[in-house]
Amino acid sequence: MVSAKKKPIGIFDSGIGGLTVFKEIKEILPSEDLYYLGDTARVPYGTKSPEVIRRYAEGNIRFLVGQGAKVVVVACNTASATALDHVRAVFPDIPIIGVVEPVVKYLSSRSDTENIGVIGTTTTIGSGVYQSALESLGKTIRAKACPLFVPLVEEGIVVHPLVDQVIDYYLADFREVAIDTLVLGCTHYPLLRPALEAYFRNKVFIIDSAVPTAVALRDLLTRSGLSNDVSGKGEERFFVTDAAESFRRIGGRFLGRPLSTVEHI
Amino acid sequence: MVSAKKKPIGIFDSGIGGLTVFKEIKEILPSEDLYYLGDTARVPYGTKSPEVIRRYAEGNIRFLVGQGAKVVVVACNTASATALDHVRAVFPDIPIIGVVEPVVKYLSSRSDTENIGVIGTTTTIGSGVYQSALESLGKTIRAKACPLFVPLVEEGIVVHPLVDQVIDYYLADFREVAIDTLVLGCTHYPLLRPALEAYFRNKVFIIDSAVPTAVALRDLLTRSGLSNDVSGKGEERFFVTDAAESFRRIGGRFLGRPLSTVEHI
Repeated sequence: MVSAKKKPIGIFDSGIGGLTVFKEIKEILPSEDLYYLGDTARVPYGTKSPEVIRRYAEGNIRFLVGQGAKVVVVACNTASATALDHVRAVFPDIPIIGVVEPVVKYLSSRSDTENIGVIGTTTTIGSGVYQSALESLGKTIRAKACPLFVPLVEEGIVVHPLVDQVIDYYLADFREVAIDTLVLGCTHYPLLRPALEAYFRNKVFIIDSAVPTAVALRDLLTRSGLSNDVSGKGEERFFVTDAAESFRRIGGRFLGRPLSTVEHI
Repeated sequence: MVSAKKKPIGIFDSGIGGLTVFKEIKEILPSEDLYYLGDTARVPYGTKSPEVIRRYAEGNIRFLVGQGAKVVVVACNTASATALDHVRAVFPDIPIIGVVEPVVKYLSSRSDTENIGVIGTTTTIGSGVYQSALESLGKTIRAKACPLFVPLVEEGIVVHPLVDQVIDYYLADFREVAIDTLVLGCTHYPLLRPALEAYFRNKVFIIDSAVPTAVALRDLLTRSGLSNDVSGKGEERFFVTDAAESFRRIGGRFLGRPLSTVEHI
């Protein structure tokens, strides 16, 4: 029997966005085996209802647990915002972490972030999860759903005048009130970071889910004695629910390197 | 037992776009009962693979047939382009019509459409169905996938400078070569018709799926003796696979009137 420590870490997202989190986990936990599931047959989650997302999240975790995952990372803000309590109740023996709590925890440690803008999908912003968590820290919060950002990124349109126009369409208010911090509450959005930095003239601290979540995962593994104690490079596997080819192609853009084999399930 | 003539017409789309076809069917076949299914839990189809779309289309038709549909309209270009042969083979006893063939047939009757631009989702354009059918008529064809159009329409952004910029991003070539005809190969696109007409300075004949498909349906009913011979206003029912509320809200925009009850299945 494989010891719990040697088992893989399961990571899922609706599609390719979670690869921004995968990349950071790979960086700080290089010896862990990482199994990534992109639910590309049902992407996107951000326009769908919490009920449907809970059902999808449960199915994704069931698959990853079936592949032997010792812990699961919900690398999707929409699923983290709407389905985390549900899947923790369904899988009480599997530690599950989302991307929202680590970002909130990180921001609670910074005293220079007072006027915060949060952006995400329609369902994430509609859930109010970021808003209530950050308001309870005494921060001023503005939140805005930016549903065109995901299709732009999926299209590979990330540096283009059109991107600047879409950013201005959603975020002119944020610039006007001079937010000091921008939370990228969707794992697709880091690819728009250069355009967002330019739009806010490099005066806004931009934070995404990747680093805080990877750090939270490392802490969890250490705390629960689940860290893989073998040195060397961990295995990585990618699973998708729709055709593998476009995931491989666009996914490479997210990771900044070609993907190893992508398996269609 | 209900006679075949009295049974409803089943119509489905990935989401709300097919309501543009529904509306026209309602217009020319007012006494027919119309059952519409929007597969909103899995929308959009246009970025997904033909294999996945075939599976979804089959499930949708199974539901409509279970509701007693005498005939099914695939009111989605992506599903029509990729899944029609498949579902006709799976349901040999149910007449099934798509939206591509009626548009091609209509264009074959016009001699003033020679230089045709076709726009649609990534999967529709990738299927090459429009291109090969229209080229076989001796027309000159240019085709372009416009994946940002659906999210714009779903967002309700249909008249706005941003729309003009997205149109220019995709269709500057079409304007430059002076196409004479533009085929809206996606049932969402009719909501962008005013913006498209302005972009092409009212010099281009724009055709969408709705009228040709409704006419093809009427012909099919007549030919097969399946027309409802009761006069009076037919019943309409709307089914969705995700939450009903946003469908009701955005769907009203498509129909130009409030929707009756929407049922979540």
